[in-house]
Amino acid sequence: MPTRIDIFRKTLNQKNIDAFLVSDFYNILYLSGFKTLVDDEREAWFLVTKNNVYLFTDGRYRAPSNILRLITPEHRLTQHLKEIIEKEGIKTLGIEGDDLKFSEYQAFKNNLKAAKIITTERLIIAQRQIKDADEIEKIKEACEIIDRCLTELRQEIKVGAGEKEIAFKIEFWLKNKGYAQAFDPIVAVDKNSAVPHYDTKSGNNIKIKNSSIILIDAGARVKDYNSDITRMFFVGKPKTEMLNAYNQLLDIQAKAVEKLNKEKFFKNIDSFCRQQLSVAGFPSYSHSTGHGIGLQVHEYPKLSAISEDRITPNQVVTVEPGIYFSGRWGMRIEDTVLIKEEGVEALTKFPSSFPSF
Amino acid sequence: MPTRIDIFRKTLNQKNIDAFLVSDFYNILYLSGFKTLVDDEREAWFLVTKNNVYLFTDGRYRAPSNILRLITPEHRLTQHLKEIIEKEGIKTLGIEGDDLKFSEYQAFKNNLKAAKIITTERLIIAQRQIKDADEIEKIKEACEIIDRCLTELRQEIKVGAGEKEIAFKIEFWLKNKGYAQAFDPIVAVDKNSAVPHYDTKSGNNIKIKNSSIILIDAGARVKDYNSDITRMFFVGKPKTEMLNAYNQLLDIQAKAVEKLNKEKFFKNIDSFCRQQLSVAGFPSYSHSTGHGIGLQVHEYPKLSAISEDRITPNQVVTVEPGIYFSGRWGMRIEDTVLIKEEGVEALTKFPSSFPSF
Repeated sequence: MPTRIDIFRKTLNQKNIDAFLVSDFYNILYLSGFKTLVDDEREAWFLVTKNNVYLFTDGRYRAPSNILRLITPEHRLTQHLKEIIEKEGIKTLGIEGDDLKFSEYQAFKNNLKAAKIITTERLIIAQRQIKDADEIEKIKEACEIIDRCLTELRQEIKVGAGEKEIAFKIEFWLKNKGYAQAFDPIVAVDKNSAVPHYDTKSGNNIKIKNSSIILIDAGARVKDYNSDITRMFFVGKPKTEMLNAYNQLLDIQAKAVEKLNKEKFFKNIDSFCRQQLSVAGFPSYSHSTGHGIGLQVHEYPKLSAISEDRITPNQVVTVEPGIYFSGRWGMRIEDTVLIKEEGVEALTKFPSSFPSF
Repeated sequence: MPTRIDIFRKTLNQKNIDAFLVSDFYNILYLSGFKTLVDDEREAWFLVTKNNVYLFTDGRYRAPSNILRLITPEHRLTQHLKEIIEKEGIKTLGIEGDDLKFSEYQAFKNNLKAAKIITTERLIIAQRQIKDADEIEKIKEACEIIDRCLTELRQEIKVGAGEKEIAFKIEFWLKNKGYAQAFDPIVAVDKNSAVPHYDTKSGNNIKIKNSSIILIDAGARVKDYNSDITRMFFVGKPKTEMLNAYNQLLDIQAKAVEKLNKEKFFKNIDSFCRQQLSVAGFPSYSHSTGHGIGLQVHEYPKLSAISEDRITPNQVVTVEPGIYFSGRWGMRIEDTVLIKEEGVEALTKFPSSFPSF
């Protein structure tokens, strides 16, 4: 089995890049297994050369000593790079143009004259689209956890409960068991459900009434991998128009999931959902139909009208069409789905069919 | 009173920049009050021209309609910018070189030929160093909240409690009251206290014993503003060497705080702490002596040996020297401090003097 580094080196070879400096937090984690405390401060770098790898970080972190090169005020990153460029005869150095800040790029350009700098985009994120067995296991686990969370908290979705209270219970449930949230859950009641990306934390905390409609969009992060699910809940008997819309949406979402194994491009999944909704007399939605998921909640491929991404086995994506009537109510059904050689598998398994949920 | 935008326009004028495109999440929040759901996906832009401001975002967000320009697939950001550049006769367009990705910069360079692009660094973050009255109020509140949190949880720091359990209680206490964490708290017991940036979440969860030393580094986020405090706790009677080190460190930290009103440069505060520790026979520490704090936990000024930042009234910084004996134990004392016209004020007021705490 080729390692992630082997696969990446093959890409570099095709592009005539002798060495590649990885700066993105998640790309470093993906290739090296190393991560810093937070994902938004530049505290580590990872260099892949033809025969070696190097991890650059500061004295607060521990890493395998054979690859670790300490960044200190006296021995900065560029100094390390200069030495390695010379020692290994590196002619071309790839960098992540879609991650490096412009001013970081400038600093490399000005200080590393020995190697030609090649800016790239989406090299590693493209590789990360195709999940290996270990990643799929971890995503499955993250899906099982969020399924369990919704199952155990199902009884809390009741008359009198507020949006923030339920969101907090989801967070508490996950963290109390040692997991993390993939993102702050969206819990949207009644007219808030019509806001596709409702912000529960800063929202007006509508409380559930009899005959309320409730949208919950949540995910777990387990062993660095994420899950993402959206389910609708009804208190009491849903209105006929809601139930009708729900059944249509459920049917369209299920068909879209199945179609992942029959189409070549993700944009066809997006257009399928919108077209089917239109045929059924519903408006289109203002968000995309889904996204790749893995170390990050939102990664490639994209399921949108302008996506050029191809459908390939071992991608993991969400499929999440919705119906929204502004100021009244809205609904979305979302699963995290694994595309297999044969068929597809929704990894989120919390029931969605009415009335059994 | 000049507004934040007024002050920023003055900077732009000095630099002959006709218009400035703000991309950083916190800089947009600072200047416009607008924020998107998450801080790491590019979902909004803010443009400041000589006479107008514009907020660009997508249909999921709400913003005042007089400044809102909707980004859609048909009407992208560059199209909006082109129109405004032409209408307002903009000759020079500033961008944030320390925030924009290299590939974003390239896209602007290629698509916006009408205006000259001027890359800048730290323009808004420099302004954000000096807090206005509203900001100081919010930071004070964030400090009061973390003080209360530590006070109420003081009794949980007892024999048998694990690091993760205490960290989780801090998080739960804050969130249950509707606040957020400034960062994941560090709770480090015994030999873990010697690791300056110990990661409690992925750590080995040492439990408190009789005669344990416990380091807690935590902060609250209230109304978007942060606080940051580190306190040491002892169970039972501390060993003489620890108590001696603690009293020395406390004295040095208090003097360093007072010195903020007497020195011109922050690097002098950093060197003062290290020098005093050295005189007292203790090793230096591998982290900086402090950092500005506000909308972000780590912002300018920096209190380090290589900092060129000047001390000015209305800056808010942390002061946090430490003493660490690897593999044995460590300690750090940290306050969030407001620099005033006359004197200084530690905004975190949880007691630090032994034995009264």
